[in-house]
Amino acid sequence: MKQPLWAKANASMDERTMRFMAGRDVHLDQHLLPFDIQATRAHVAGLADINALSGDTASTIDAALEQMLSDIDAGKFILDDRYEDGHSAIEDYLVSRVGEDGKRVHLGRSRNDQVLVALRLYMKDALTRAALLSLDAADAALQRARAHEFDPMPGYTHMQRAVPSSIGLWMASFAEGFCSSASLLRLTRSWIDECPLGTAAGYGVNIDLPREHTTERLAFERTLLNPMHAQATRGSSELQVLSALWQPAQIIRRLAWDLVLFSTAEFGFVSLPPAATTGSSIMPNKHNPDLPELLRGIAPIISGCMTELQCTLALPSGYHRDLQHTKEPLIRGVTTLFQALELIPDLISNTTFNLDRMRSAIDPSMYATDDAVQLAIDGHTFRDAYRHVADNLDALDNRDPAVSIKARSSLGATGNLALAQIEARITALRTDL
Amino acid sequence: MKQPLWAKANASMDERTMRFMAGRDVHLDQHLLPFDIQATRAHVAGLADINALSGDTASTIDAALEQMLSDIDAGKFILDDRYEDGHSAIEDYLVSRVGEDGKRVHLGRSRNDQVLVALRLYMKDALTRAALLSLDAADAALQRARAHEFDPMPGYTHMQRAVPSSIGLWMASFAEGFCSSASLLRLTRSWIDECPLGTAAGYGVNIDLPREHTTERLAFERTLLNPMHAQATRGSSELQVLSALWQPAQIIRRLAWDLVLFSTAEFGFVSLPPAATTGSSIMPNKHNPDLPELLRGIAPIISGCMTELQCTLALPSGYHRDLQHTKEPLIRGVTTLFQALELIPDLISNTTFNLDRMRSAIDPSMYATDDAVQLAIDGHTFRDAYRHVADNLDALDNRDPAVSIKARSSLGATGNLALAQIEARITALRTDL
Amino acid sequence: MKQPLWAKANASMDERTMRFMAGRDVHLDQHLLPFDIQATRAHVAGLADINALSGDTASTIDAALEQMLSDIDAGKFILDDRYEDGHSAIEDYLVSRVGEDGKRVHLGRSRNDQVLVALRLYMKDALTRAALLSLDAADAALQRARAHEFDPMPGYTHMQRAVPSSIGLWMASFAEGFCSSASLLRLTRSWIDECPLGTAAGYGVNIDLPREHTTERLAFERTLLNPMHAQATRGSSELQVLSALWQPAQIIRRLAWDLVLFSTAEFGFVSLPPAATTGSSIMPNKHNPDLPELLRGIAPIISGCMTELQCTLALPSGYHRDLQHTKEPLIRGVTTLFQALELIPDLISNTTFNLDRMRSAIDPSMYATDDAVQLAIDGHTFRDAYRHVADNLDALDNRDPAVSIKARSSLGATGNLALAQIEARITALRTDL
Amino acid sequence: MKQPLWAKANASMDERTMRFMAGRDVHLDQHLLPFDIQATRAHVAGLADINALSGDTASTIDAALEQMLSDIDAGKFILDDRYEDGHSAIEDYLVSRVGEDGKRVHLGRSRNDQVLVALRLYMKDALTRAALLSLDAADAALQRARAHEFDPMPGYTHMQRAVPSSIGLWMASFAEGFCSSASLLRLTRSWIDECPLGTAAGYGVNIDLPREHTTERLAFERTLLNPMHAQATRGSSELQVLSALWQPAQIIRRLAWDLVLFSTAEFGFVSLPPAATTGSSIMPNKHNPDLPELLRGIAPIISGCMTELQCTLALPSGYHRDLQHTKEPLIRGVTTLFQALELIPDLISNTTFNLDRMRSAIDPSMYATDDAVQLAIDGHTFRDAYRHVADNLDALDNRDPAVSIKARSSLGATGNLALAQIEARITALRTDL
Repeated sequence: MKQPLWAKANASMDERTMRFMAGRDVHLDQHLLPFDIQATRAHVAGLADINALSGDTASTIDAALEQMLSDIDAGKFILDDRYEDGHSAIEDYLVSRVGEDGKRVHLGRSRNDQVLVALRLYMKDALTRAALLSLDAADAALQRARAHEFDPMPGYTHMQRAVPSSIGLWMASFAEGFCSSASLLRLTRSWIDECPLGTAAGYGVNIDLPREHTTERLAFERTLLNPMHAQATRGSSELQVLSALWQPAQIIRRLAWDLVLFSTAEFGFVSLPPAATTGSSIMPNKHNPDLPELLRGIAPIISGCMTELQCTLALPSGYHRDLQHTKEPLIRGVTTLFQALELIPDLISNTTFNLDRMRSAIDPSMYATDDAVQLAIDGHTFRDAYRHVADNLDALDNRDPAVSIKARSSLGATGNLALAQIEARITALRTDL
Repeated sequence: MKQPLWAKANASMDERTMRFMAGRDVHLDQHLLPFDIQATRAHVAGLADINALSGDTASTIDAALEQMLSDIDAGKFILDDRYEDGHSAIEDYLVSRVGEDGKRVHLGRSRNDQVLVALRLYMKDALTRAALLSLDAADAALQRARAHEFDPMPGYTHMQRAVPSSIGLWMASFAEGFCSSASLLRLTRSWIDECPLGTAAGYGVNIDLPREHTTERLAFERTLLNPMHAQATRGSSELQVLSALWQPAQIIRRLAWDLVLFSTAEFGFVSLPPAATTGSSIMPNKHNPDLPELLRGIAPIISGCMTELQCTLALPSGYHRDLQHTKEPLIRGVTTLFQALELIPDLISNTTFNLDRMRSAIDPSMYATDDAVQLAIDGHTFRDAYRHVADNLDALDNRDPAVSIKARSSLGATGNLALAQIEARITALRTDL
Repeated sequence: MKQPLWAKANASMDERTMRFMAGRDVHLDQHLLPFDIQATRAHVAGLADINALSGDTASTIDAALEQMLSDIDAGKFILDDRYEDGHSAIEDYLVSRVGEDGKRVHLGRSRNDQVLVALRLYMKDALTRAALLSLDAADAALQRARAHEFDPMPGYTHMQRAVPSSIGLWMASFAEGFCSSASLLRLTRSWIDECPLGTAAGYGVNIDLPREHTTERLAFERTLLNPMHAQATRGSSELQVLSALWQPAQIIRRLAWDLVLFSTAEFGFVSLPPAATTGSSIMPNKHNPDLPELLRGIAPIISGCMTELQCTLALPSGYHRDLQHTKEPLIRGVTTLFQALELIPDLISNTTFNLDRMRSAIDPSMYATDDAVQLAIDGHTFRDAYRHVADNLDALDNRDPAVSIKARSSLGATGNLALAQIEARITALRTDL
Repeated sequence: MKQPLWAKANASMDERTMRFMAGRDVHLDQHLLPFDIQATRAHVAGLADINALSGDTASTIDAALEQMLSDIDAGKFILDDRYEDGHSAIEDYLVSRVGEDGKRVHLGRSRNDQVLVALRLYMKDALTRAALLSLDAADAALQRARAHEFDPMPGYTHMQRAVPSSIGLWMASFAEGFCSSASLLRLTRSWIDECPLGTAAGYGVNIDLPREHTTERLAFERTLLNPMHAQATRGSSELQVLSALWQPAQIIRRLAWDLVLFSTAEFGFVSLPPAATTGSSIMPNKHNPDLPELLRGIAPIISGCMTELQCTLALPSGYHRDLQHTKEPLIRGVTTLFQALELIPDLISNTTFNLDRMRSAIDPSMYATDDAVQLAIDGHTFRDAYRHVADNLDALDNRDPAVSIKARSSLGATGNLALAQIEARITALRTDL
């Protein structure tokens, strides 16, 4: 590892301590490096604006940084244990390409605001991608809702058979759910869309940095103004991002639970695609719903990341090295969610619905609510209607569930799924992202 | 307790079980009751729209509900253990005032969507109030930032003296922080601003409810469309609300930590208002910063509420009674934050800043960064400038910190606090709430 | 509220602040008061030992404290908002009975070690009670395991039918589970069984308190030695207690999940006792498993309490008022678990097993594992045996599941449930508690 | 990757799904592999006991397994992405050494009990190692307590100067704290010291495995009896282990906080060893306490792991693939704690105590408590004594703090640190581990 900038003459750190302090930082920085380079380019342009760098030098550095991005994309540059962290790697790359001038990029900047801005860009990107993946999942669900708009299946509350429902309603619930998640991810992106670059180590710097230009260059909505506040957002922004990511993870959890439950022998409502199941090492007869089961476990991972952050953030003002620990839960949460979300559209599209099993699970008592409501419409109080039907459950006979399904005609209900409205919301969000 | 609607002939529940199942529900419903009544009025109006209730009956019921709200405000009606929950209390009240027609309000509605809509209204109100209280705290901090714009105090990183800073910067960091929290609370309100009334128990109902009228009557931004999705938001919306509330709690935590630290004998930068301190039962010499210490503990309470919710929400589709448990962490989180937030403006305004102690804690080595940056501006690489200054720390002499403070002139830094911009953001948010 | 001991002349605290700082402390102290009195009696005896109190005075005070305990038991003394906290209530009671001498009990003691010792006694008692309740639950499960030792039911992995199993195995798993929880609760009690009384506010006190006598008088196993360590255990002991309580809560969660799942129409393996179900407000046909559903939500409450504590405990050495917040999650966790645990034996005993439904859910493919193992015993590699059976699943015919059940004869398995060993463990623990 | 045992003819899993489902499993299994091999050896011996394997075959397999352990130790065998998981690697290794017989080790065992037993052995080892490391930390602290037994330093409550204290008391608090942690780790090891091998996939197996022999061979205290309970402990045992590990992490957190606080310019009580500090990238004057700051962040990591587990464990009986996710938080928690704990002895030993700064921070008002207690001993009520001293604080004069320190003579207090007792506890635990 290179000698760090801040190395003290008397520093003699044993290897174990070095390893503990470095942690997994350089590996985590692999996720941040392109954003760090992007922000460094904006910083260099800003220094040129105020003549702290000559235009030529700035151009040379910028070209080298562009090259570094290409090298990363092409796999020619790999951030690994040779470097202390991503920041050092950038400086090292620059010095090797443009000589001593490469060191000038550190002027007017601290690692504190450097990592803050890289994290903000990373989080914005993560929120955008998560929103798009959520919309893909919403689309897949919407398509299946359309194809099975009035196909009957039982509706459950408390896991007890309640009233006739439809595959359309079930699938549309995920369409609206993922769409709503995308909306939250979009709002959260807007909240963190503030440029912290130029706040240095939390107290500003004695150069007149063109902060608002930098904000524009990096396409942030606003400038994060106060340097101490900038430091204080470290970890707090991350928590809010994780909380937003938890929402699609939670919808995945519900979907996965449904698929596990509905693919039991006892329910038998769905057959999972082969790619979602595996066998057992001891039981030759098993087809296990491993994929949905593992998907159920995504939200807990994000919850763990959230607790980790919340326990860490118990500090006075100013940067503290504890905050280094905030990178890992953020990146773990983001990475894990992406891996899960990108599997959802196929899972939704390729699951087989066993229409007969669903239909035959609707028993006559499930029309009780319809009848009670009808009696109430006809003039009885609902309580009396309820009591009358409850006392005569055996008198209920089998019917065509489609009649019940279509009779529930309020907006969004089984008879009126509002699929066009959900689709419109999806489209509007895609446009806005 | 009244016989519940759903009582079964054969139900024989022992008292311990009843008590366990009731939990603290009726007490929690005290917080929800006004919103439940508000939504009931909208539901009654909707039933009248579609002639499921006559206009006269609807008017009579509406008047009784208005009266109930007045009775609650006046302390004439108290929701207590006589009732199973708030829903039963409303029906009971109505029957006692308007007779059997009172029971008609239950037509086309389940307790499921009834509680969902009451919770949404409660959460919207809570977010608005929390945002306003955050802006009050921001205002208090802004005022002190203005009054002490360039008054010097040390700036710390890692709790080590770093560079000269100012009370203005410190206080403005809370102004921007609380303002930013208010912005998040506002965005979160917008996300949950959807009307679930009319989705019944998760599968709709066989009446053609005028859901979009109801959405307008209750001043929601949008209609929550899919009834299964509506059920699935139970607890998830609450989590997002708590996550947003955690942000001002976290800023309170930082402020409180600073006050505890800065009021130690060793720092001595601030003196807390008498109302924020107490004595010791065994040590006659103590003045303890109990209020800030207790304030530090608010964010952890909200974190606990978040984990509680996240552990609960591991369920397939459809309502499950487990979700009953989501009320308590929400209401505990909201209530606790309000109690804390409303104490913040006075705490900020009444804390005494000990200017001399702050000034004298700025030692010459803290000008090292200024000098290194200046050398870099003058043409050295920053690394060389840094090394030069680091090797000559003893040569640094004392100066007027105001020069250093004012020289940091980038937007938001000590020399350019951007107070007008922060104020403009506060004002814009107030208008928007 | 009485003027507190530590009131300062200049203290002028507004009511809102007072209310915030008092929190729910006096209500929480209702749970601690008997233990506080018990420890106060030991402290008084200790003061008499070293002649810091005369024998007569000590006797008088002790008699008054004994009377106070009786008054509490008899409902004659109620700790309420008249008092700042339980400590003040004790002093107040004493002064009213024995005059100024009542104030002498505070000698050599701080509220810090007073609350520490009361909490330790409370936690020891809670752990003992929780262990006993767990053993009651274990007994109930064991009895049902015995009654249905070889009654067949399907065994599931991944919620897929796997191999034939038995009610005996299922019920015995709860017997061992609750017994194992009791064992953990017992070990945890042993860990916290240390007397902190005499450590004052964290630095000891200039009296030669007979600490080891006090330890014996209060029947602690050990003396907690170091006063700073004593303070540092505040909250940490509580977390460990909650973690131990989480274990039976988790077993409740699994039991409750099984009951909810097995009482669906689709499984139909069990019928819940009427006392465990309720109806729906809108659906006349419903019998919902509300009690098991609410029971599933107990472990999450304890998890929330644990996170709350963990987020709070981020402090340097010494008492901080933040630690006040540790009382509530402890007492909430303990109280909630007790309410749940005491319902378990009846729930287990009164659930009906639908033997026919269970039996008929065992299909021929579930004998595949038996056959594969038998082939392997007969000399094939297990992999080949597995493959052979997997390729010929259709050839499997129906059998008497009892044969399969009894053939699994390893200790603890369906054919050899080890009920006597489980019973012996339960008995040994009861004796040890 | 090899074709897994349970591969189905029709399985066609895309790479993304494969990658998601494999997760980091094979990397995590690096930690478990030696324990998996150890348990496999015991299983093979058990199969020989019951003649399911010939003695010769068993010996051949055992020798190969012993060789595999050596190969791992020597770095000749590395578990990596070539394998699905550790279990497959063992089988593969065996087949390559002993041919088809290598496949026989799977007889009478499922991956379910195979991973359970490996995890138990791993956790027992981790608890033992953590206990030993805690005792090392306790020893280091004890040594410094001895060397500075009566050296004065201020004692704080609420971070306010309270009473004179000593370095001895401060250091002894960590000695007792780490020792107490070791005791908990030992108790927790005892709780999980149960052999699950032989419970197969949760329902036993149709071979008469000599389970009690296996328990002895693997040196477990008890046999885990019920196979369904065995499955249900997955994740729950892990949580309890993490909760025990959290205790030393929490003591580390307190120690680290003290070091950060006491090494500020304002306190100046300690100077950290150079190996524990680093510089700043922008501020040439900084020596930052990075190591203690990073150490503060260890407990939060474990807390996050605990929440992750708790959110995952919301399932009915039987194995579910979700439980795969329990490996990572366990191993992350264990690994992180070890890295931190092993740095503690040096950190404690090499920190310099600045005796003069500590001494001079003791001001006269800190004798108030001594005087009030003395007045109370002399016959005043403590309240009156307290009031008298509180009203005359200015009259207190400076003294030799050693008098105050030594006067606090109760067991464990500054004048009587009970170091021999703490040492005896440490020694007893070492012997017992």
